[in-house]
Amino acid sequence: MSHFRPVAPEHASRLLNHGPTILITSRSADGTQRNVMAAAWSTPVEFTPARVAIVVDKATLSRTMIEESGVFGICVPTAAFVDTAYAVGSVSGRDGDKFDRFQIASQRCPESGVPLIESGCSAWLACRLLPEPNAQTRYDTCFGEVVAAAADERVFRDGRWMFTAENRELHAIHHLGGGRFVLTGDSIQAAPL
Amino acid sequence: MSHFRPVAPEHASRLLNHGPTILITSRSADGTQRNVMAAAWSTPVEFTPARVAIVVDKATLSRTMIEESGVFGICVPTAAFVDTAYAVGSVSGRDGDKFDRFQIASQRCPESGVPLIESGCSAWLACRLLPEPNAQTRYDTCFGEVVAAAADERVFRDGRWMFTAENRELHAIHHLGGGRFVLTGDSIQAAPL
Repeated sequence: MSHFRPVAPEHASRLLNHGPTILITSRSADGTQRNVMAAAWSTPVEFTPARVAIVVDKATLSRTMIEESGVFGICVPTAAFVDTAYAVGSVSGRDGDKFDRFQIASQRCPESGVPLIESGCSAWLACRLLPEPNAQTRYDTCFGEVVAAAADERVFRDGRWMFTAENRELHAIHHLGGGRFVLTGDSIQAAPL
Repeated sequence: MSHFRPVAPEHASRLLNHGPTILITSRSADGTQRNVMAAAWSTPVEFTPARVAIVVDKATLSRTMIEESGVFGICVPTAAFVDTAYAVGSVSGRDGDKFDRFQIASQRCPESGVPLIESGCSAWLACRLLPEPNAQTRYDTCFGEVVAAAADERVFRDGRWMFTAENRELHAIHHLGGGRFVLTGDSIQAAPL
């Protein structure tokens, strides 16, 4: 049974606010091909409407698919999924379907048709591309608007991440380089002003 | 004695690769005013030349200063600095100099004139704005090229973060919302393909 529950649009930015490494999913314009890659470079850019930016090299199959289909997905891999996340960041989808190769379970997003990964991930956001040719060409930066989002209620509830020692394997991963990651760690509360 | 050492341009993206909350520093065009704000929304966009994107609301004093001066700084606050980081994200520089108000030590960047914070931070990047009017207007996204960078050798050495239990107070912070942060946590190594 899936632990994923819908996330309200106004809370979608929080899924990325802590700067996790993400998986970017995509599909061909005709829907017959799909792809997934790892990326450390993304950021929310707007709360409402929920909008994000992802950085995707123009040489990648993902970039071609995103620009041709006008949609992409963002999935947040968990600590337990680190080997798979690193693997899909190390090979190209041009050499074969990575979902099959790495046995990644996915479902097709009803709104956008992109593959979404729940098993091994803690959250996903389905997005439509907001074309911005200069930013795409000069900085490989693709803007998108969130059309649907969901998260695992064991670690994201009531619009908030709940990282604890007990759900450590659901924590996010943050890439330092060369396959070394840090987990999302202990919580601290800043003093109110 | 400062523990900061220069970071090679080709390693500058790693300072932000793990998605930390950052402090954005700025100055007026004539150099007589300065500002600092907190931001969770940033990402590297290019390794070489080292380039980044930051998201800065157009209503802020920081945004005005960045667009008028053409420069900005990024400082990476440590866990020990969380209260100050949250405080500078909660008030506007229009209500008075935040460096004075919160007793933040800074130095002026020789290359860009922006204030840079070492005490309480683990790294900084001085950047020049790469004007991209559409992305700035539509998505509050400002691109920049790194002109100088440095990091605390107690936690960043040989081009790599070295987060350990011993230097926990130098770990980065990642904002979850409402003043709740998570620290950069335990390291894990992905299996090679």
